[in-house]
Amino acid sequence: MSSDKEFLSHKAFNMRTNVVRMTTKAGSGHLTSALSAADIISVLFFDVMNYDPTNPKNPNNDHFILSKGHAAPILYAVWKEVGFLTQEELMTYREFDSVLEGHPTPRFPWAEAATGSLGQGLSVGAGMAMNAKMFHHDYYTYVLMGDSEVAEGSIWEAAEIAAYYNLSNLIGIIDANRLGQTTQVMDGHHTEKTAEKFRAFGWHTIEVPGHDVEQLIKAFREAKKSDKPVMIIAKTYKGYGVDLVEDENGHHGKALKPEQAEIALEQLEKRFSKAANYVDPHSWKPEVPHVKQAQTQCEIIIMRKPDYKIGQSYKTRQAYGDALAALGDVCTNVVALDGEVKNSTFAETFEKAHPDRFVQSFIAEQNMIGMAVGFEKLGKIPFASTFSSFMSRAFDQIRMAAIGRAALRLCGSHAGVSIGQDGPSQMGLEDITIMRTLPDSIVLYPSDAVSTWKLVELMANYHDGISYLRTTRMGTPIRYANDEEFKIGGCKVLKQGSNDVACIVAAGITVVNALQAAATLEEQGIAVSVIDLYCVKPLDVQTLLEVGKKSGNRIITVEDHYQAGGIGEAVSFAVRNAEIQVDCLFVDRLPRSGTPDELMGYEEIDADAIVKTVKN
Amino acid sequence: MSSDKEFLSHKAFNMRTNVVRMTTKAGSGHLTSALSAADIISVLFFDVMNYDPTNPKNPNNDHFILSKGHAAPILYAVWKEVGFLTQEELMTYREFDSVLEGHPTPRFPWAEAATGSLGQGLSVGAGMAMNAKMFHHDYYTYVLMGDSEVAEGSIWEAAEIAAYYNLSNLIGIIDANRLGQTTQVMDGHHTEKTAEKFRAFGWHTIEVPGHDVEQLIKAFREAKKSDKPVMIIAKTYKGYGVDLVEDENGHHGKALKPEQAEIALEQLEKRFSKAANYVDPHSWKPEVPHVKQAQTQCEIIIMRKPDYKIGQSYKTRQAYGDALAALGDVCTNVVALDGEVKNSTFAETFEKAHPDRFVQSFIAEQNMIGMAVGFEKLGKIPFASTFSSFMSRAFDQIRMAAIGRAALRLCGSHAGVSIGQDGPSQMGLEDITIMRTLPDSIVLYPSDAVSTWKLVELMANYHDGISYLRTTRMGTPIRYANDEEFKIGGCKVLKQGSNDVACIVAAGITVVNALQAAATLEEQGIAVSVIDLYCVKPLDVQTLLEVGKKSGNRIITVEDHYQAGGIGEAVSFAVRNAEIQVDCLFVDRLPRSGTPDELMGYEEIDADAIVKTVKN
Repeated sequence: MSSDKEFLSHKAFNMRTNVVRMTTKAGSGHLTSALSAADIISVLFFDVMNYDPTNPKNPNNDHFILSKGHAAPILYAVWKEVGFLTQEELMTYREFDSVLEGHPTPRFPWAEAATGSLGQGLSVGAGMAMNAKMFHHDYYTYVLMGDSEVAEGSIWEAAEIAAYYNLSNLIGIIDANRLGQTTQVMDGHHTEKTAEKFRAFGWHTIEVPGHDVEQLIKAFREAKKSDKPVMIIAKTYKGYGVDLVEDENGHHGKALKPEQAEIALEQLEKRFSKAANYVDPHSWKPEVPHVKQAQTQCEIIIMRKPDYKIGQSYKTRQAYGDALAALGDVCTNVVALDGEVKNSTFAETFEKAHPDRFVQSFIAEQNMIGMAVGFEKLGKIPFASTFSSFMSRAFDQIRMAAIGRAALRLCGSHAGVSIGQDGPSQMGLEDITIMRTLPDSIVLYPSDAVSTWKLVELMANYHDGISYLRTTRMGTPIRYANDEEFKIGGCKVLKQGSNDVACIVAAGITVVNALQAAATLEEQGIAVSVIDLYCVKPLDVQTLLEVGKKSGNRIITVEDHYQAGGIGEAVSFAVRNAEIQVDCLFVDRLPRSGTPDELMGYEEIDADAIVKTVKN
Repeated sequence: MSSDKEFLSHKAFNMRTNVVRMTTKAGSGHLTSALSAADIISVLFFDVMNYDPTNPKNPNNDHFILSKGHAAPILYAVWKEVGFLTQEELMTYREFDSVLEGHPTPRFPWAEAATGSLGQGLSVGAGMAMNAKMFHHDYYTYVLMGDSEVAEGSIWEAAEIAAYYNLSNLIGIIDANRLGQTTQVMDGHHTEKTAEKFRAFGWHTIEVPGHDVEQLIKAFREAKKSDKPVMIIAKTYKGYGVDLVEDENGHHGKALKPEQAEIALEQLEKRFSKAANYVDPHSWKPEVPHVKQAQTQCEIIIMRKPDYKIGQSYKTRQAYGDALAALGDVCTNVVALDGEVKNSTFAETFEKAHPDRFVQSFIAEQNMIGMAVGFEKLGKIPFASTFSSFMSRAFDQIRMAAIGRAALRLCGSHAGVSIGQDGPSQMGLEDITIMRTLPDSIVLYPSDAVSTWKLVELMANYHDGISYLRTTRMGTPIRYANDEEFKIGGCKVLKQGSNDVACIVAAGITVVNALQAAATLEEQGIAVSVIDLYCVKPLDVQTLLEVGKKSGNRIITVEDHYQAGGIGEAVSFAVRNAEIQVDCLFVDRLPRSGTPDELMGYEEIDADAIVKTVKN
């Protein structure tokens, strides 16, 4: 690459003028946050990084995550300088038909992760760096952060875990421009304070004046020699280069008016006249990294059949571990992450089988999800697990993963009040809901070991969005033969007759309750049909309608989950105009400690409650 | 209090034997995590803290948060020693009818916050410490954490902000017992590493052997002299005292079997024979803190009337700021917190009026919510705001606040695709859903400034759960007179005639679209009714049914929000058995940057889409 200072300053100048033009044309956007990063970006893209500018998918590319996603104009501006975008394309920033969105999304092929919710990029970078260590790649991963976002705890989760795993191939840069959206950041321009924090977390730190191209070059050279992860803290000025706004509060996220932009462009030209008038004597050519053997792809993953015995009691969470380990046997791209509950989620079964592809993510769920995104973006199939209740801890990261089209595979164990004595904090009662909200997500909820196994296989082959598997703490009877088939968007009619007065739609643990209720009712001469709704999203609306209509036009949903956005609402919505009566049983009272039976009784989702509802 | 070492060791011994008994009786529970903390707890409760053991609500009590909530047995055991619980009550741990839950909830009056989702207690403590500084109380706040949970980023959010605000009245203790649920913590027993991190974050740190009562006493004395927040890192052993399990992996969350417990009790008696046989020469009496004048309560808060002009365009988010400032005028208990977006949420209007009751919480939403819980638990009325999309970042904290019965008032601005160019990461599209899941929550979504103002007043007076207000970025026409009345569980019928073919149920920004559609349809001779659903939870089902039935038995919902758990599903659920046709318009495609109009058109939630749906 180039370490010609004049050339790098010239590129920074070009980007500065373009971010002024882009934001003014759009009438909005984060001008000042882009300006402070221009020199860092110039050095990174034209001196430091190795990448194939024609191919974002080259597996040997160094990686770059713009964690401060609002500085998107600088990302687009640098790809104009690299040659990937034309000036015309650049000027479509923030327009409806443009891929140059207000905050980066994968619609722009060089945005390696969707960013814009702050503090998430370092985790994604840590995942990419871990991928390199795990699969023996020698690329580096660079993450550019703002100083404001360092207040997000997720940054420190990533920092601790990156140091723990010694990710010396991870280089963070903080664009320390002192000013947040409305106020000065906590450390102000005392970059030594920020540096001290990262050193205490086990990182090598380098403080550097962030508009000094030569110093930046040196800093990155030093960084690449470190045997620890490195944080470069670049002291910059928000709005640097444009006198109207430089180092002044009150300009966050605001574009200049056309007349102001004109003045700014003239003034930039004067202030950086040398860079403005620089003529490149040699045309820049990137050092395209050597393409090594591309990594193995597992196109369609077919697992061996499970070996469970019908009627035996088995925990679905344990079957998740079994299946994941078996999946790892047939596909080397499968990686598992767990949040220090591996003996509860049974991710430990995978770890035992494939220790080199297991990441202990400790009690830091946000970072676990961010790292999973990093793996996924580089072609891996990451399965991340924790208690279903604690998926809520990483909901913003999961939301952003969905926006970023990262096909995470998530497993939440210990769903619902049926976990028993541990009490409400440990009960996942809103996990179905949050996972249903995600665009293109699928939500799976097996009732036995065989279905769990088969659903894990479906997840591995689902690449269009996030897939979520909900598992149960206690054992449930194995119901299906080992060769039973399942599908995304399917359900199983477990029981159906010609005189059914209602159809009970259950999932997971409540399938047990539903079948028990059906047996009790049968003794009393009342027939009902029973559906195992193992796929909650997408719903098998056709089967629900068919069976519901044949069952006295009556559906009763029963779920170990809250109402809002749960199975009852999903089914009510799906059949809303079909003239089917729908009654819904769900967790309606704040639960507490107790035995599973006591709690399912208390919440009226047990067999008795189902019987009562059918009879009413 | 007492600094008699023998007495304190005796109390620790009593607690150790009781946690063995309790967990064995329950057949589950976190024995080893309780044992490691026994000496710390003894010193805290019988030497360090000032409190009125007969009155958890005494405003001068020192505060104690058990952040490592799974160690609940030690919390209950100490209250037995203090005299608040009998031995019989203690033995009901984890039973259905007991208030001694698996993880502490406010059903136990001395649990000052619901804990059990790790890493949250320090934020709650920071809120309590901030409350003391803000309202001139001289109590201390103590937070006991596990070393595993220090991996949670929320701890570091709290650490940074506590140091920034110089909360020297906040004393954290880490029970550094080395072992997590399945593995050694990242710092192992290198407590000096953990200490270095907190020092870098601006805390005074003290490392102490955590089973040495004398050293613990000294550490707390030193802590109370500090002019910074203090972290005491106590090196302990998991399961300390019980040879069967001490300092050994694999015993997390497991109770001893009855025969093991018997051996353990005998062995404890031998190992701590002096403490076991100690006879208290003086009966312990706490130094009950002097009860100062109780703080002002605002029983029923009545705000002045707003002063808006019908027809004028005004942003609901701006009205939120206006109302909050006015609320602050009439109630000194109102506190506002904002996540460094105060000029977007308009929390800055409150800050300008009441700077001494505003907390700049920086970009650390999890800690913001935790601090709000701290304020609320001490009788304040906290309003916390950020973008509606970023409420997802703190969803686990919000979930725990609901379990903890903390009546937080939350405001999420920039709801939906109608924010425009900033793109999907900044659009709250699942906030209605997550807020609806919370037990006893209310969800409010005003369409104009007057309703916003009045809803803020309702929130201030709602103490039974979390209340959430959703505001819109752009201005909307003021629709209501300044003396219009609103109620929790209400809605407004904006338009109704005798020939309506459908009822359009809208909220927030879509009320504008609905009225525009109604006008267009009217020109074409088609009459519809329109409802402003300003309260999404609880729903005014009666009005929906009445108006729906009179409007051709047809309801059309339209919302700037995703489907799952949104307004369409809530309404479909509510009217599911009423033979009303329901059509739902919602955000159904992953949105992008664009103008508000382009995006509402793209998602088919604009006036055109409504017109089309009515006509179909």
